[in-house]
Amino acid sequence: MRISKGQKLLFIGDSITDCDRAKPEGEGLFGALGTGYVSYVNALLQTVYPELEIRVVNKGISGNTIRDLKARWQEDVMHERPDWVSILIGINDVWRQYDAPFMKEKHVYLDEYEETLRTLVTATKHSVEGIILMSPFYIESNKLDAMRYTMDQYGSVVKKIAQETNSLFVDIQGAFDRLLKFFYPAALAWDRVHPSATGHMVIAQAFLVAINFEWKKNCDNFVY
Amino acid sequence: MRISKGQKLLFIGDSITDCDRAKPEGEGLFGALGTGYVSYVNALLQTVYPELEIRVVNKGISGNTIRDLKARWQEDVMHERPDWVSILIGINDVWRQYDAPFMKEKHVYLDEYEETLRTLVTATKHSVEGIILMSPFYIESNKLDAMRYTMDQYGSVVKKIAQETNSLFVDIQGAFDRLLKFFYPAALAWDRVHPSATGHMVIAQAFLVAINFEWKKNCDNFVY
Amino acid sequence: MRISKGQKLLFIGDSITDCDRAKPEGEGLFGALGTGYVSYVNALLQTVYPELEIRVVNKGISGNTIRDLKARWQEDVMHERPDWVSILIGINDVWRQYDAPFMKEKHVYLDEYEETLRTLVTATKHSVEGIILMSPFYIESNKLDAMRYTMDQYGSVVKKIAQETNSLFVDIQGAFDRLLKFFYPAALAWDRVHPSATGHMVIAQAFLVAINFEWKKNCDNFVY
Amino acid sequence: MRISKGQKLLFIGDSITDCDRAKPEGEGLFGALGTGYVSYVNALLQTVYPELEIRVVNKGISGNTIRDLKARWQEDVMHERPDWVSILIGINDVWRQYDAPFMKEKHVYLDEYEETLRTLVTATKHSVEGIILMSPFYIESNKLDAMRYTMDQYGSVVKKIAQETNSLFVDIQGAFDRLLKFFYPAALAWDRVHPSATGHMVIAQAFLVAINFEWKKNCDNFVY
Amino acid sequence: MRISKGQKLLFIGDSITDCDRAKPEGEGLFGALGTGYVSYVNALLQTVYPELEIRVVNKGISGNTIRDLKARWQEDVMHERPDWVSILIGINDVWRQYDAPFMKEKHVYLDEYEETLRTLVTATKHSVEGIILMSPFYIESNKLDAMRYTMDQYGSVVKKIAQETNSLFVDIQGAFDRLLKFFYPAALAWDRVHPSATGHMVIAQAFLVAINFEWKKNCDNFVY
Amino acid sequence: MRISKGQKLLFIGDSITDCDRAKPEGEGLFGALGTGYVSYVNALLQTVYPELEIRVVNKGISGNTIRDLKARWQEDVMHERPDWVSILIGINDVWRQYDAPFMKEKHVYLDEYEETLRTLVTATKHSVEGIILMSPFYIESNKLDAMRYTMDQYGSVVKKIAQETNSLFVDIQGAFDRLLKFFYPAALAWDRVHPSATGHMVIAQAFLVAINFEWKKNCDNFVY
Amino acid sequence: MRISKGQKLLFIGDSITDCDRAKPEGEGLFGALGTGYVSYVNALLQTVYPELEIRVVNKGISGNTIRDLKARWQEDVMHERPDWVSILIGINDVWRQYDAPFMKEKHVYLDEYEETLRTLVTATKHSVEGIILMSPFYIESNKLDAMRYTMDQYGSVVKKIAQETNSLFVDIQGAFDRLLKFFYPAALAWDRVHPSATGHMVIAQAFLVAINFEWKKNCDNFVY
Amino acid sequence: MRISKGQKLLFIGDSITDCDRAKPEGEGLFGALGTGYVSYVNALLQTVYPELEIRVVNKGISGNTIRDLKARWQEDVMHERPDWVSILIGINDVWRQYDAPFMKEKHVYLDEYEETLRTLVTATKHSVEGIILMSPFYIESNKLDAMRYTMDQYGSVVKKIAQETNSLFVDIQGAFDRLLKFFYPAALAWDRVHPSATGHMVIAQAFLVAINFEWKKNCDNFVY
Repeated sequence: MRISKGQKLLFIGDSITDCDRAKPEGEGLFGALGTGYVSYVNALLQTVYPELEIRVVNKGISGNTIRDLKARWQEDVMHERPDWVSILIGINDVWRQYDAPFMKEKHVYLDEYEETLRTLVTATKHSVEGIILMSPFYIESNKLDAMRYTMDQYGSVVKKIAQETNSLFVDIQGAFDRLLKFFYPAALAWDRVHPSATGHMVIAQAFLVAINFEWKKNCDNFVY
Repeated sequence: MRISKGQKLLFIGDSITDCDRAKPEGEGLFGALGTGYVSYVNALLQTVYPELEIRVVNKGISGNTIRDLKARWQEDVMHERPDWVSILIGINDVWRQYDAPFMKEKHVYLDEYEETLRTLVTATKHSVEGIILMSPFYIESNKLDAMRYTMDQYGSVVKKIAQETNSLFVDIQGAFDRLLKFFYPAALAWDRVHPSATGHMVIAQAFLVAINFEWKKNCDNFVY
Repeated sequence: MRISKGQKLLFIGDSITDCDRAKPEGEGLFGALGTGYVSYVNALLQTVYPELEIRVVNKGISGNTIRDLKARWQEDVMHERPDWVSILIGINDVWRQYDAPFMKEKHVYLDEYEETLRTLVTATKHSVEGIILMSPFYIESNKLDAMRYTMDQYGSVVKKIAQETNSLFVDIQGAFDRLLKFFYPAALAWDRVHPSATGHMVIAQAFLVAINFEWKKNCDNFVY
Repeated sequence: MRISKGQKLLFIGDSITDCDRAKPEGEGLFGALGTGYVSYVNALLQTVYPELEIRVVNKGISGNTIRDLKARWQEDVMHERPDWVSILIGINDVWRQYDAPFMKEKHVYLDEYEETLRTLVTATKHSVEGIILMSPFYIESNKLDAMRYTMDQYGSVVKKIAQETNSLFVDIQGAFDRLLKFFYPAALAWDRVHPSATGHMVIAQAFLVAINFEWKKNCDNFVY
Repeated sequence: MRISKGQKLLFIGDSITDCDRAKPEGEGLFGALGTGYVSYVNALLQTVYPELEIRVVNKGISGNTIRDLKARWQEDVMHERPDWVSILIGINDVWRQYDAPFMKEKHVYLDEYEETLRTLVTATKHSVEGIILMSPFYIESNKLDAMRYTMDQYGSVVKKIAQETNSLFVDIQGAFDRLLKFFYPAALAWDRVHPSATGHMVIAQAFLVAINFEWKKNCDNFVY
Repeated sequence: MRISKGQKLLFIGDSITDCDRAKPEGEGLFGALGTGYVSYVNALLQTVYPELEIRVVNKGISGNTIRDLKARWQEDVMHERPDWVSILIGINDVWRQYDAPFMKEKHVYLDEYEETLRTLVTATKHSVEGIILMSPFYIESNKLDAMRYTMDQYGSVVKKIAQETNSLFVDIQGAFDRLLKFFYPAALAWDRVHPSATGHMVIAQAFLVAINFEWKKNCDNFVY
Repeated sequence: MRISKGQKLLFIGDSITDCDRAKPEGEGLFGALGTGYVSYVNALLQTVYPELEIRVVNKGISGNTIRDLKARWQEDVMHERPDWVSILIGINDVWRQYDAPFMKEKHVYLDEYEETLRTLVTATKHSVEGIILMSPFYIESNKLDAMRYTMDQYGSVVKKIAQETNSLFVDIQGAFDRLLKFFYPAALAWDRVHPSATGHMVIAQAFLVAINFEWKKNCDNFVY
Repeated sequence: MRISKGQKLLFIGDSITDCDRAKPEGEGLFGALGTGYVSYVNALLQTVYPELEIRVVNKGISGNTIRDLKARWQEDVMHERPDWVSILIGINDVWRQYDAPFMKEKHVYLDEYEETLRTLVTATKHSVEGIILMSPFYIESNKLDAMRYTMDQYGSVVKKIAQETNSLFVDIQGAFDRLLKFFYPAALAWDRVHPSATGHMVIAQAFLVAINFEWKKNCDNFVY
């Protein structure tokens, strides 16, 4: 397991991360982590590694693009002094190009996305133990679909920056592609973006595999 | 994995199972499985075994005792023709003895609990492929605590009936005991009964281990 | 214009037709026709042909399939004694096969769809002046997409029955395909099914063209 | 069609324009244009001219008079840099004289109305490609009715300023007068001011005719 | 004063009478008489004639026509054993002809109105001390307005039946006509039907004058 | 009638005056005058003297004492430039002495009450045509009741200041005393302070008599 | 203490007893006993006599008179098999005579009150260990006040029936009279009927004294 | 009785004290003291000692620790000029260590607790007649339970400071321990912290015994 005892793991992103988390804290009792993949990751970490006392914080905000993350990076990331930062951003950067095509001031094109993400990761990597970069995704199996095609380009940029900066890369799009062989997109996400419980578990599993989480570590006592 | 392709897995129980599931169906889109361990089990089954097309149904109702389950068994279980039935009941049977001590008509004592559960399991086992019996639990580490002590007796009855009837037994109390070495009860459940997301994941994990779920089965594509 | 003075035009269908119409009447003041294409058709008929006094009734109900239409046909159609009946059904018949794949009892397959629709149209055509059959649609431009492919089959059945029964056929899918050359699906419908105002206008226009509505008929007084 | 590819068309006015639009943006997904004539105009433009990519913005605010428009003109019009501006104002300027006769500070009399409207149009016309002036209206067929009589005077001023400034003039009152030959006012507007869906379509049609919108342009594919 | 000590005075009618009265009783504390003219009549009777102990009951129901009154006459009037019955009905009978012109089954034409009202009054008059018939009204000063013209015909029928049956007739339309010399309709009623507080006081005053109410009877103690 | 054509009549006071009036304006359409005696006075003025065009403004605020009136006198009275000011204050000044006996900082004793009221009236009388002072009241018939006894002292002060300053005095307590011969207090006011509709009409009548309102002035047309 | 270990004590009455208790049970967790004197009695019994395990049930219903109690006596009292029954009824029987003087069908006069109460007590006394009769009360210190005077007559009847039937009598009116020497009624009850927390404690204390409750019994451990 | 006529008694603390009190005042009519032990103490003081006119103020705020009390001490205590101050604080100081173990910035450890409490008491004691220190508590009977064990340490500190400063000490934990011999914790408090009505009465009784309250002082008139 890459995360050590007592470390703080901070997630930042858009509505996929947010999921009605407590604001502004992003942690605490009573569903403060929201109802999405962040909550699942925390629940699985505490279930399997209770001895590690890992502190999870959720700083997702619905509708955010990389431009919004930049604006609140100092307060919501640096100020929190996390040991690990996980970033899942880019869906709205792409989506607005397709669902609000005339409102070009809301589009974040690939150049700006790449430059901003690289700047944030580079500026942060020496203050933390590790950064996890998750690919933005679109729950659509047709890779020639225009929005899927664009999203894949954003995902490639994330992967490239991960490699450049020695960050962990988690291929969420790939994880969904595996399920799309069995499920039609509408069974996983009403609008191909906001996942069902299953979709959030797909993200959580991909994340946990990336940090070398061992599911069966604590299971001896379940054998009868 | 004990559950085969295309089978229907039905969960029945009290508020721990219910968790605001859609009523009366107990399945469908948009959170119809509720927000608790049933939803987590389904999400993990679909994430790791999408090819199995397992159908999950949630028939939990808050406040139920074994007496209530008996009353609705025909309609909510037999009528649904499940392949697998998972039962998590007994917490309210015990709890009312402690939080409403004078309302004895609401207490379900051990004899009635054992007899009713045995009757239901025996009457059902030949119509299904398997029955999973989960122990009722109390998130209290002191085994001499009066309510914990009573709950353990109910748990023993469940284990005994599981053995008699060749059902799977899942030791939820044991799973929580493991975490209670690291967490104080209030960190897992406000009232020592209704678990946080972590507590529901503890139940889901214990259930999945019992059915030989393989977490890492599909993880090759996450290695980079 | 195919609809004559004083005639009653009844629309029946699913949520695309319903759009929060007044129930059970389906007509009256204050948005009783709902906020979708039925309201637009009525508004355009009254704007351009006020002298015709056409009475529009909306009998759509969200979530309906052809099976549901059959169950309420006597009360909601025959009992209303319309002169014209417009039917837009089939989306949920197909959708459930894709978003709830395990709940097969909710799927309405092509055979049942065709047989039921043919029965209803045949039984009704001699009691009314005309029947308008609108194709079910899916706002997805990729014709190889599984759900779009299935929807097209249902649309073909509608066209075939229209020809057999001398009903008017309106190709709603075709009307959306025209727009999909310019707009990505997410700009027209959040979930590729429930249209924006533009999408409802697309349906209304296609319907009106089919009944030989003349948009410019009354425009002389607008020339300055 | 007077509006060219990629142009921005901004509507400003009172509650007839507002219709619960998103504030402050006045554009976007999910009904951001409100539920009135602005939404209909946009839907018809996108349905018939999808290739033109016209951007529609709604800056109506309920209760506004020309005095209110003046106060927010810089921020809500000039700052938006529209190509076309459509103005529908004056109803509240007149109405308050009749429904709140003693609150004279809320009345905007003809002189102030004319002077303010002329100032705004003159100051704006060189920054835009065109201005569309719609007459304020009162859905009352009796031209000797006091409020109708006054409203007609305000309408005449609008027409005069349109001619002076080479703006397009749209005679909304005339459009309603045509329908009032067939419908009693109460069938078109509960209070003779706020129109039903039909009434909003009347406004949309009049506007579209004025900009040379061609309804049948795209209808070839509907012929069977 | 025509009403004697201890008598019960029952009002029946449509929304003008109803005004959110308590249902089904129509009397009691805390606004049980609603907020309209019935409440004002009761307040003025108690203020000026407290010694008479007159019991007022409100049985108005919004949207009612004479057809609805007939259907509930036995329960809501005869069963209450009033000494006086005041009837204000007919507005909806006429209004539906104008605001919902195509829904002819909701129109109550003059013949049915006259016959039903005469039947009810004739059947009741020997069981009570007196019947008060108030004319239906339309707050529109133009007597050639179509709906006003029709309403006046219904008012004439009420007056005729009052004379035939020796009932008191109260000319509410006339009372409003007096005010319409000074106020525009919109200042008295948003929709020319549902009056403001002033409009309800106009009705109350007309009613009270008809029963020979003496306003200044108790005023000596106010002279200083 | 003491109030002349076109004059503005402003009411100020506590919850008896307020009655859910529109804030901060205190006038306008749709119940802006609240539901109490101010609304009744306005309705009766408009019903009987429509030609006078009297403008009524309600500036009551629940819970106010004379101390609160002083604090907002400049903004809520002087700034409004009324022709007539009617003041009904003192109930809370007294009530707090009886229902919150230990919170002495909320009590306004007789000296402060008298001095403040005299100051306000004296400072205002030359700016207006007339001031109307209404006695605070307590709907309790037993004059030896402690709170009634105190209230009568405050009423005497009001009467004295009215005489000193040539203001009109309206004896509201006397008006209620007359009714209390026939009604028990609970029939007029739940808490002996906040009146029913009848109680508000008692206040309205007393006020109107004091300004020489002529109820029967316009009644000739009601004689048949 | 008159109540013995394990006995059930049932309270029945009107809104003073009800206080938003859980319906229909009248017992249980989370405020099921309501927020009034029944809850205080139970809290004090459990605080001072925890060893007695007394079961308290609340069957009060707002607005009830003795007539209503009779109608539900079988179901709400006899069916519950209490050991002790406490009755506090009569306030509404009297109040309606004063706040709704014309609705005589809602008045329950002294004869009916006495006869009904005697019948219920007599029919019940042999099935229970004891009956406690509490006097109805009116928080008004003036014994010549009409409603207080009437209430005292009802209280005398309760006392008489208590003596005849060997029931315990609790003089609630007397308990309030003691406080009224120090507090004005408005400080104890907004409407002289529904008490503040203090007023409910007055009732609870009077009840507890009557059953020989010993407040200091358990206080030794509080001495320091 | 330690508290003398006319004195002001101020309670400060966390949610146990708060109980939905009116904010910011903390006193007044209509439940301003909240629904917990403060309200009970006030009700019992007024019931038994009405002649003392003791003024009770509630300044509890949910979630507070001693750190929060320090921050608002000047405004909420000193500024109120109380004669007696009662402090019940420390539960959240301990609880956060157990239910939010990773959020260490929210934990208030024993040193800080002791120092802050001593500072506040020392700084205040010369300005008031007396200070009452209530022990924080945990409704758990197992003294080896980790949170109970910690809470007892905080309670010991409170007792020590009470002795040092000549304050009254009230052993709330001891009072609950007495009841825990008869009731399981869940019957007294859902989460072992927030008490039922019985639990609040336990606190009220312990407080009152400490100030030498005499329950039977006024009971002679209840003997029959």
